[in-house]
Amino acid sequence: MPTTLIHFPLCPASRAIRVALFECGIEADLSEVKPWALARDFLNINPAGTLPVLMLDARAVCGVYPVVEYLSESTPRETGAAARAQIWPGLPVERAEARRVADWFLTKFDAEVSQSLLDEKLYKPMARGRLAPDLPAIRACRSNLRYHLSYISFLSDQRKWLGGDHISFADVAAAAQLSVMDYLSEIPWTEFPEAKAWYQRLKSRPSFRSILADRIPGFSPPETYADLDF
Amino acid sequence: MPTTLIHFPLCPASRAIRVALFECGIEADLSEVKPWALARDFLNINPAGTLPVLMLDARAVCGVYPVVEYLSESTPRETGAAARAQIWPGLPVERAEARRVADWFLTKFDAEVSQSLLDEKLYKPMARGRLAPDLPAIRACRSNLRYHLSYISFLSDQRKWLGGDHISFADVAAAAQLSVMDYLSEIPWTEFPEAKAWYQRLKSRPSFRSILADRIPGFSPPETYADLDF
Repeated sequence: MPTTLIHFPLCPASRAIRVALFECGIEADLSEVKPWALARDFLNINPAGTLPVLMLDARAVCGVYPVVEYLSESTPRETGAAARAQIWPGLPVERAEARRVADWFLTKFDAEVSQSLLDEKLYKPMARGRLAPDLPAIRACRSNLRYHLSYISFLSDQRKWLGGDHISFADVAAAAQLSVMDYLSEIPWTEFPEAKAWYQRLKSRPSFRSILADRIPGFSPPETYADLDF
Repeated sequence: MPTTLIHFPLCPASRAIRVALFECGIEADLSEVKPWALARDFLNINPAGTLPVLMLDARAVCGVYPVVEYLSESTPRETGAAARAQIWPGLPVERAEARRVADWFLTKFDAEVSQSLLDEKLYKPMARGRLAPDLPAIRACRSNLRYHLSYISFLSDQRKWLGGDHISFADVAAAAQLSVMDYLSEIPWTEFPEAKAWYQRLKSRPSFRSILADRIPGFSPPETYADLDF
């Protein structure tokens, strides 16, 4: 049985792991599930119902933290040398800072921005047909998104990459979140030129090609979604 | 400047790290903050506002995931040998399973049980005086808690420890959550004998002594809170 990633194309954590797998040089088949209608056999594998899940033969690595630490532990440090990004480069304290920033985007950004926006714009319509969206919730997410874009601008003004001197999973986690918001036409790029310049560097990496090619039937991204010059 | 843990005594993630520090043989001073009234100087250190924060000289390691991975990376594997618990013992796939279970308790248990119960029973009264608690929210948490106690019973029936054959941070994270619920008199121990037997093993470890000695003025725990035979 080959290595398989159970994912959903617009799940931010799944996207982060797809990019990380490519950066680590690990090939994995993709198997898609629908977050709004998880089947019993998926919940038997991961009772928490979280994505993604990395299947290694018959063993499952469940959830974005266990998967990313598994990739970090299983990938020889040398492979990260030249073109590829390491998951957590540097000394323990530098790795700790990259983990803080990754956790910011995996947890805080997710709770304050993408969970509700995905729910309102994609998951609920997919599950129950097009209903009136919860506009106050959407407005709150958009306001939070601006705050997070400011934080990306702030960090990329202070450092070469979001977690420090080297590209790390902090950048991948943040860019995965932004790529989903960008697919939903939610990002006011012109207001955040530093965040845009940082995202452009991520978006140009070969590891991003696969997620830029994603299309959900009936939910098209904006025209500039896959453009490297947007 | 000595190593200092910024924490709150009844914050489950803070407790998990206090136990982990002891198991790793690391001495740290404790510095207390109030989660319901975080000061500006704390938010300057950790803008996400999460606990705990481990201060190493002038550098901060912010949040439970970065801290626990930092402890795992900085503690020589050998020190874990005899009496002490290692953070993530075993092979990468076994460590992944321990991380899944730790994440279950740090994230899922926290969101479904302890965040609201702490809010209703401690943080809101501390912040605004004794108001009428949100009884439907408390009832929902209590129902969720039974489901999580069943999961602990299920896991400890299948395995020696919650994450696998060896004690790990999965046990510490789960026991830290239960210790807070126990302080709040919320655990129906007699209904969950397997979970109780597992918790008894954790509670008896020297690393738990400090959290069993915690007392919040005006909020006493039940008489059996610190008893090893409860």
